[in-house]
Amino acid sequence: MSAESKIPYKIYLEESEMPKEWYNVRADMINKPAPLLNPGTLQPMTAEELGGVFCADLVEQELDNDNRLIEIPEEIREFYKMYRPSPLVRAYCLEKKLQTPAKIYYKFEGNNTSGSHKLNSAIAQAYYAKKQGLKGVTTETGAGQWGTALSMACSYLDLDCIVYMVKCSYEQKPFRREVMRTYGASVTPSPSDTTEVGRKILAEHPDTTGSLGCAISEAVEMAVTHEGYRYVLGSVLNQVLLHQSVVGLESKIAMEKYGVKPDIIIGCAGGGSNLGGLISPFMGEKIRGEENYQIIAVEPASCPSFTRGRFAYDFCDTGMVCPLAKMYTLGCGFIPSPNHAGGLRYHGMSPILSQLYADGYMEARSVGQTEVFQAAEQFARVEGILPAPESSHAIKVAIDEALKCKETGEAKTILFGLTGTGYFDMVAYEQFHNGTMTDVIPTDADLQPGFDGLPNVPEK
Amino acid sequence: MSAESKIPYKIYLEESEMPKEWYNVRADMINKPAPLLNPGTLQPMTAEELGGVFCADLVEQELDNDNRLIEIPEEIREFYKMYRPSPLVRAYCLEKKLQTPAKIYYKFEGNNTSGSHKLNSAIAQAYYAKKQGLKGVTTETGAGQWGTALSMACSYLDLDCIVYMVKCSYEQKPFRREVMRTYGASVTPSPSDTTEVGRKILAEHPDTTGSLGCAISEAVEMAVTHEGYRYVLGSVLNQVLLHQSVVGLESKIAMEKYGVKPDIIIGCAGGGSNLGGLISPFMGEKIRGEENYQIIAVEPASCPSFTRGRFAYDFCDTGMVCPLAKMYTLGCGFIPSPNHAGGLRYHGMSPILSQLYADGYMEARSVGQTEVFQAAEQFARVEGILPAPESSHAIKVAIDEALKCKETGEAKTILFGLTGTGYFDMVAYEQFHNGTMTDVIPTDADLQPGFDGLPNVPEK
Repeated sequence: MSAESKIPYKIYLEESEMPKEWYNVRADMINKPAPLLNPGTLQPMTAEELGGVFCADLVEQELDNDNRLIEIPEEIREFYKMYRPSPLVRAYCLEKKLQTPAKIYYKFEGNNTSGSHKLNSAIAQAYYAKKQGLKGVTTETGAGQWGTALSMACSYLDLDCIVYMVKCSYEQKPFRREVMRTYGASVTPSPSDTTEVGRKILAEHPDTTGSLGCAISEAVEMAVTHEGYRYVLGSVLNQVLLHQSVVGLESKIAMEKYGVKPDIIIGCAGGGSNLGGLISPFMGEKIRGEENYQIIAVEPASCPSFTRGRFAYDFCDTGMVCPLAKMYTLGCGFIPSPNHAGGLRYHGMSPILSQLYADGYMEARSVGQTEVFQAAEQFARVEGILPAPESSHAIKVAIDEALKCKETGEAKTILFGLTGTGYFDMVAYEQFHNGTMTDVIPTDADLQPGFDGLPNVPEK
Repeated sequence: MSAESKIPYKIYLEESEMPKEWYNVRADMINKPAPLLNPGTLQPMTAEELGGVFCADLVEQELDNDNRLIEIPEEIREFYKMYRPSPLVRAYCLEKKLQTPAKIYYKFEGNNTSGSHKLNSAIAQAYYAKKQGLKGVTTETGAGQWGTALSMACSYLDLDCIVYMVKCSYEQKPFRREVMRTYGASVTPSPSDTTEVGRKILAEHPDTTGSLGCAISEAVEMAVTHEGYRYVLGSVLNQVLLHQSVVGLESKIAMEKYGVKPDIIIGCAGGGSNLGGLISPFMGEKIRGEENYQIIAVEPASCPSFTRGRFAYDFCDTGMVCPLAKMYTLGCGFIPSPNHAGGLRYHGMSPILSQLYADGYMEARSVGQTEVFQAAEQFARVEGILPAPESSHAIKVAIDEALKCKETGEAKTILFGLTGTGYFDMVAYEQFHNGTMTDVIPTDADLQPGFDGLPNVPEK
C-alpha cells in the first residue's frame, strides 16, 4: 500500500506540528509590492504616519519586506489551538461524483464560529492592540465574517470592538449582527451619521447600500479621532497576508506528511486574505524556481478587479482618507451590484497579490454568481459542508479543472481553499432555489467612471 | 511531564481509531426498557408490525436487547469519515475564566453542516432504507437539526426526504428550511393539510404552533400510506441511542488515550439521543459495577419530563397513531410554551434512559432558559464556539459543577456533550440580548391535563 492510498478523508496535524512562524512571501518576491503612499504628499507612508492608524507592531509587519519568517507569539498560538489546525480534506466524494481522475484537496477554514479564515488575522491584530495597551479597535465588515472574527478575538482579550457593517449586509444579515453582539461588539450600519465621512456620503448618496470602501473610511475616522483606538483591517494589507500564511503553511505540512504535492492551487479573491494566505509558501517555492505550481485566483464577474481592473495607485477607501496602494483596482468609487451575494466586494486587491499577478506568477478567472451557487449546491450534497458564497468561487473553478482532467485523463492534484461556511447566506441560497438570483456583470461603461476617478500619481 | 500535562486543546482520533461497532447499552441493562405496545391491542409490537413503519434492519436493532456490539456497516463508516471523528475539547479557556480546579472536557458534535450530532443516526437510518430498496423516508423536525441531518444523509444516498417541521420553528427558522432545500428535501410546516391527522389537529386547534408529537403523527401517516416509504425518527428510539453511541465511544477512546477518566458526565436531554449516545459506554461500566460515574441529564424547566413527568406508558405522538412507549412523559398532549427556544421540546423521553433513571443510575436537573443563555454567552466568549440552545443546557450544569469544585477545591474531571452550534438560533440570542427572553415554567395545573390523558395500560 502506497502512502497515498492511506490518505484519510481529513488530515489533522498534531498541535506540535502547527507552524510557530508566519511566512512572509515579500522576502522572496523579486519585485516587492509598492509602498503605501500618503494621500496628501504622495510620498511613501512612514512608520510614524502609519502608527496613527495601526498598532505599532503591525506597522512593523506591514513594512517588513525582508524577514522571511516571523515568530507567532505564544499567546496567539494558544488561541489558534482553540480552532486550529484546520482540516485538509481529501474530497473523495466530490471526485467520485465528478468521475474525475483528479485528486482534490481542500483546506477547510470554516470550523470556527466566525465561520471563516478571518479569525487567523483577527486574533493577531487584537493581540498586538492589547499588547500596546489600547482600549479597542475599529473596523469594517462586509459579509460579516471579518467583523465576527474580530468580535471573537476582542472578546477573548477583553478589548472594545467597534464594527461598521456595510448597510446592505447589515439589513440582509441581522443574525450576523447578533453573533457579533454575543461577543460584545458594537455594530453600526455604514454609511452612518457617526462620522464626518459617513455624513458626507449619506448627503451625496442618501440611498446608498454602502460599500466596503465606505465602511473603511468610517472605521478609520473613528480610530484616528478617538484616544486609545486603532484601526484594523481583515484583508488587502501585507500584515493580513502574513497572518493568513498559517493556512498555506498548514496545508503544505499536511500534504508533505503524505507525500502529496499540488499541481493546481485555487483560491477565491476579494481583497486577497484567503488567496494570499493559502498560496504564500507555495508561491515562495515558485518564485525561487523550486516548483512550478499553477496558481489561480477566482473572483466574481460582478467585481472583477484582477481580470478587468487597472494596476495603479488608488485609495483603499471610498472616502479617500486612507493611504494609496498600488494594486489592481476598479476605482475606489466602484460599488458592486447589491444583488451580488456574500463578500468579494472590494474594489481593489492586495498589493502583494497584485504585484505577483503583474509579474506572471498567477492567473485569474472571473465567474458568474449563478454558476457559483450551482457548484456550491453540488459540493454541499456530496461533501456535506454548506459552503460560503465566497468559497464557492474556488469550488467552481476546482470542479472546472477536475472536469478538464476527466477529459484529458490527467490525474492532477488540485488544492483549493474552502474559506468558510454559508450558514448566514441562506437568503442568497433561497434566491438561487427560487430562481430569482441574477448575474450582474458590469459593462465597460459601468467601469469607466471608476477608472476616470483614479488619482494621478506620477511614476517614479 | 505527565500524560495529562500534554493534553492538547482538541483531541482528534485517527480514522483508524474510530469505532467499528456501535455499543448497545441494553445488553448490559439489568431491567431492560419496556417494549413498545400496539396502541390497539396493548400487546408488544412485533417485528412485523414495526416493519410497516420502520425499515427492516432498524426494526431488528430496535428490538435487540441482547447484542452488546453491533457492526457499523462500511458505507456508514465511510460517511462518518466525512465529519468524524469529532473533537474532544479540553476547555482550558473556560476553566481559566471560572478559576476552577475542575478539568472540563466537551465532545463537540457541531462541526458538520447539520450542526449537531443528529447526523450520526440520520446516515444510519438512511443507509438501511436505501439497502431495503425504498424510495424515501419521512420524518419530523423541531429545531431543524434532525431534518437537516436527514436531508444531508438522503442527498448523499439519493433518497427522497419528506420533512414535517413544527410550525413555530418553520416560521422562526426560514434558513433551516433553505438548508434542507439545498439538500433536496421537501419541507412542510406541521400541522398541515397534507395528512388526515394534520387536518384533524388543525380543525381542533386552528392556532396551534405545532409540536414534535404532532409532526410525528403526520410523518408516520405519510410513510404508512405511501408505497416505498418508511418513517425515521431522530431521537427517543432504541436504535437512535445505538447509533449515537459513537459519540460516547469516541469520547471514551480519546480520554483513555490520555489516561483521563470523567467523574461527572453531563448531557442535555430532549428525547435522549445525545445524552443516551454520550453516556452509553460509560453507563455500561457503571451498570457492570466497574466505575461509578456521576451522570446528569439536563432538561429545560419548560419541558421537564424527567424531573416532573410520570414514568408510564404513553403515546409517542400527539395524534395517538404511534405505538406506546414506557417512558418519563408529560403526556402526549403536552406542548411546551412557544417562547422556549431550540429543541428539547418533546413530551417524553427515551425508554432506555427512562428505565436507567428509574433504576437510579443517573440524576436529572431542570434549568431555566435565561440562565441557559447566560451560560451560552459566557461559553462563547471564552471557548469561541457559539453553542446551540440545546447544548447550552449541558454547559449551564457543567459550569455549575465546575464552580462547586472551585468552592470545595476538588479537581474533578467533567465531561459534557456540546451537541451543536447555534447559528440558526440567533432570534433567541437576539431576545436574550434585548432582554425580551422569558422563562415560562409550567405550573402543576398546567401539567395535570397531560397526566390525565395518559392511556390506561394495565401493569403486567
